[in-house]
Amino acid sequence: MTANWGRWGEDDEIGALNLITAEKRLSALQIPTTGQAISLGQDIQAAGVPMAQDGIRGFHLRPAHSMMYDGGDEASGCSTRGDNYFSAEDYLGLRIHGVTTHVDALSHGWKDETLYNGYSRNVINSFGAGKLGIQNATNFVTRGVLFDVARAKGVRSLAVDQTVTVEDLKACDTVPLEPGDAVVVRTGWRNVYYDDPETYDQLAWPGLDFEATSWLAAQDVVLVGADTVGVEFAAPGFVKGGSRGHGLLLRDYGIYILELLDLEELSAARTNEFLFMMAPLRITGATGSPVNPIAVV
Amino acid sequence: MTANWGRWGEDDEIGALNLITAEKRLSALQIPTTGQAISLGQDIQAAGVPMAQDGIRGFHLRPAHSMMYDGGDEASGCSTRGDNYFSAEDYLGLRIHGVTTHVDALSHGWKDETLYNGYSRNVINSFGAGKLGIQNATNFVTRGVLFDVARAKGVRSLAVDQTVTVEDLKACDTVPLEPGDAVVVRTGWRNVYYDDPETYDQLAWPGLDFEATSWLAAQDVVLVGADTVGVEFAAPGFVKGGSRGHGLLLRDYGIYILELLDLEELSAARTNEFLFMMAPLRITGATGSPVNPIAVV
Amino acid sequence: MTANWGRWGEDDEIGALNLITAEKRLSALQIPTTGQAISLGQDIQAAGVPMAQDGIRGFHLRPAHSMMYDGGDEASGCSTRGDNYFSAEDYLGLRIHGVTTHVDALSHGWKDETLYNGYSRNVINSFGAGKLGIQNATNFVTRGVLFDVARAKGVRSLAVDQTVTVEDLKACDTVPLEPGDAVVVRTGWRNVYYDDPETYDQLAWPGLDFEATSWLAAQDVVLVGADTVGVEFAAPGFVKGGSRGHGLLLRDYGIYILELLDLEELSAARTNEFLFMMAPLRITGATGSPVNPIAVV
Amino acid sequence: MTANWGRWGEDDEIGALNLITAEKRLSALQIPTTGQAISLGQDIQAAGVPMAQDGIRGFHLRPAHSMMYDGGDEASGCSTRGDNYFSAEDYLGLRIHGVTTHVDALSHGWKDETLYNGYSRNVINSFGAGKLGIQNATNFVTRGVLFDVARAKGVRSLAVDQTVTVEDLKACDTVPLEPGDAVVVRTGWRNVYYDDPETYDQLAWPGLDFEATSWLAAQDVVLVGADTVGVEFAAPGFVKGGSRGHGLLLRDYGIYILELLDLEELSAARTNEFLFMMAPLRITGATGSPVNPIAVV
Repeated sequence: MTANWGRWGEDDEIGALNLITAEKRLSALQIPTTGQAISLGQDIQAAGVPMAQDGIRGFHLRPAHSMMYDGGDEASGCSTRGDNYFSAEDYLGLRIHGVTTHVDALSHGWKDETLYNGYSRNVINSFGAGKLGIQNATNFVTRGVLFDVARAKGVRSLAVDQTVTVEDLKACDTVPLEPGDAVVVRTGWRNVYYDDPETYDQLAWPGLDFEATSWLAAQDVVLVGADTVGVEFAAPGFVKGGSRGHGLLLRDYGIYILELLDLEELSAARTNEFLFMMAPLRITGATGSPVNPIAVV
Repeated sequence: MTANWGRWGEDDEIGALNLITAEKRLSALQIPTTGQAISLGQDIQAAGVPMAQDGIRGFHLRPAHSMMYDGGDEASGCSTRGDNYFSAEDYLGLRIHGVTTHVDALSHGWKDETLYNGYSRNVINSFGAGKLGIQNATNFVTRGVLFDVARAKGVRSLAVDQTVTVEDLKACDTVPLEPGDAVVVRTGWRNVYYDDPETYDQLAWPGLDFEATSWLAAQDVVLVGADTVGVEFAAPGFVKGGSRGHGLLLRDYGIYILELLDLEELSAARTNEFLFMMAPLRITGATGSPVNPIAVV
Repeated sequence: MTANWGRWGEDDEIGALNLITAEKRLSALQIPTTGQAISLGQDIQAAGVPMAQDGIRGFHLRPAHSMMYDGGDEASGCSTRGDNYFSAEDYLGLRIHGVTTHVDALSHGWKDETLYNGYSRNVINSFGAGKLGIQNATNFVTRGVLFDVARAKGVRSLAVDQTVTVEDLKACDTVPLEPGDAVVVRTGWRNVYYDDPETYDQLAWPGLDFEATSWLAAQDVVLVGADTVGVEFAAPGFVKGGSRGHGLLLRDYGIYILELLDLEELSAARTNEFLFMMAPLRITGATGSPVNPIAVV
Repeated sequence: MTANWGRWGEDDEIGALNLITAEKRLSALQIPTTGQAISLGQDIQAAGVPMAQDGIRGFHLRPAHSMMYDGGDEASGCSTRGDNYFSAEDYLGLRIHGVTTHVDALSHGWKDETLYNGYSRNVINSFGAGKLGIQNATNFVTRGVLFDVARAKGVRSLAVDQTVTVEDLKACDTVPLEPGDAVVVRTGWRNVYYDDPETYDQLAWPGLDFEATSWLAAQDVVLVGADTVGVEFAAPGFVKGGSRGHGLLLRDYGIYILELLDLEELSAARTNEFLFMMAPLRITGATGSPVNPIAVV
């Protein structure tokens, strides 16, 4: 399956982002009616926010924010400047995937040794992704469409073993999808982190089944996001199959994935259509970026 | 001088961001005419892009992007998953100020032991900023106004010892400023990094003089940005006075500062008015965030 | 209490390390009879070894070892060299205290705003310890004395609520202490990490009571170490008092502290006297260093 | 060439370290006559000490020591403890090879896709070295032999284009080598860092030629160290051939390499034979470790 390979040229590195045309942007800017801006990103902290389990796939690093210069230094008589003005310095250490809201670049996932558009997975080595790095995808300004599955089902959160099917998506009664739309799916699973941390911590979550993922991909969306670690349904144990949809979206279609969204405030705004804006950090060779997407309604 | 202290309440932590109202946003969305989206951020790399000198104020850390899992691992027979799908993992280590495009939070600078709105600089310790952290400023969607000083003067870049005065700003023939506007000032200094790296590396740059900074602040802008490390003029040696404008903007007025912008493409678009969108990462307690601001024209 | 302040001069920065004279070293070299060398350090890993709880005092960082160049890179066709020879590159990220075997420098702890020898705690700021940094203590080659409390009591480990008293130390039937000796106390608590991880993880451990700590300090030892996170007894909750002995040793006496030792193999060697060798990394301004002390018996 | 493969068993992971027997250790302990202990490690700092050029092989990271809790925090009113005692917390970020005194593990280098003892280079992936990791080599207590080439030639430092030949080694008039000896070669090149930084910074240095390396290897030494970044001679440009000796020592013979030593104080002690002690940090899967080797004379 190589759905969109070659569609935007043999050398293309941005995939479905090609679907966000100037016209699409101008059209999306006309959507907002109230002017309310809603952040869909979560706070970046070492603890106290939803993230993947410590130790998953061998990774143990949580976000690390530290100060290289702070008010205490001045209090103790130190100064790095010659005048009466002081300024702080920060350091951020961040595993990009799994610990905060982030977008997956098209280089993030592969199958049968190939990435989107046929690039070899060998272009990704210790120095980063030689192709399809996130720096190629500098901005997403488009229409956002919310599938508020939890609201449609009248629950605070889907259950851990609940998949989101095509029927579930259609039941959301949202606007018809158009090419270049940014789709976000709300399961409410984020609430479980706060309601019942132990259940959240089992490394399983509700999400799209493969058919639903395929249905979205076939409609030429630019990205699919969710309020879980993995967008797709993950049965307890995180075993085979859980990443099949990643392969379909990233590799076959060149569609971006957005994870660990906070969709609670957007849900409360009760609109399924909005202006979506996201600007990944231009990290050369990265296979993703932390982001703080904004919805204007 | 405590210009805006108390203006938005004694407990306010977002300062001039209060000036971006829902109406301001809706109005800004109407500006674009072509739908072109321009990234104002620079690539994040360990070398090959403009940044502050190694060693300034004792800081030697350049951006570090490394791979925790990559294509080479699969090539050598390793797999962290049970199926035919693979995915990469990245790590980003980033000193926030000085090495890439970033916004200064209101907690970034202080004077006379106080921050914006009268908070003590003691709230900033090794665990971060207890007040005025960047996580409070989740998004900036507003009108952007470009002062293209280099173009107005007909030069590729201002000289290292050239200040930008109120007269220089007025000579840019741009739209009149209104409350909540995001102002970016183009000196062209970024070009010097590529044209003449040794000159760039001397830790001095052209920029706003104090009077020009004050003039902008008095017009209730939400932020002031530039294509240099420091927005303000910095005479060789980076000595006293160079940060006086930082104190005025951040601390006295609660106005944000945006540094190391890439304004070349925006300049080429030949419009001084645009839709400005920026979403800092919500790093709890950080005194700034790497950003990739977007202009839609 | 300022027991050893001024004893080795007003400017002294190495404290009890002054007690290891050339004669002391030559004498210690004569102790070994079998030539067996035993490592007292533990493996440095993100998981699977004893360490302090995640989150203690706000710190969440576990040891992070990553590869900046590896065999997989060559397997995928990358090479950083021009010939047939390849070499790897590693990165180590390490919180120094609490996650692996480490020595506390004399700058590590303070009381009443002062460090050992009367230095102000203000010398320790975001740039490190301006005085008493670990780089001053380049090596410890001396006699080691083991107090094998667990063996003396005939248990695999002391219980979590068990203190080690002066009587317990005296009951170990070891050699009389002499100035400059390196003392290590075995509680067996390390075994609990493997036997019963939940009990280990409660952030409490057996250890020296204050009287026993004082007794050791009064005998002019150069360091006191143990196979726990904190040497001193820590009652569940890690509340007041638990660090009183740290203050006594580091600050009052200038005696070093060594934590998270692995004393199992040394215990099995059944000798209480040995050649002790430890060489902290010379990290300028650090208040401690990871170490791998060696006992030769 | 697979000189020592299989010599200590097909599963051997420590190579020439097998040559340090209990008898060898006991014998080495008898060497010292004065009891003076000399550190052969350099200070770990971001700047101001010899290291490989920024950017070599794509690596830009210098040592990073930062404080996670310090005296300034207390000065500004913060405390992480409930009592009158405070303690600091440090973080160390360290690229292991090239920026400070370090030992190369046998997994550090490979040729023809194989490591020492025939292990595939594929065992080294993003999770570290699955075989031959430095944690296997817990300690080196043996006889040290100094070849003080600079002293023998009567120069402060060899010139950048000067190789150390077998004749040069023999001219040092030191003791005859025996199995298990730790050999350190002094070129004086370290002095050039302080005398003439620009010359030092050219990424070339004097060192062993391949014949001299082979001569040392053939005598069953356990390690070869030097006061340069690379032990072997490196002609300007760091091109082919410069790592041939690494392949011979690490891969063919299982002999360890020790780089960026400070041999000035040892040279001043005027003895070519000493007790050598080194304890690498037991970093699981690392291809090397920062070390601070100690000589007792």
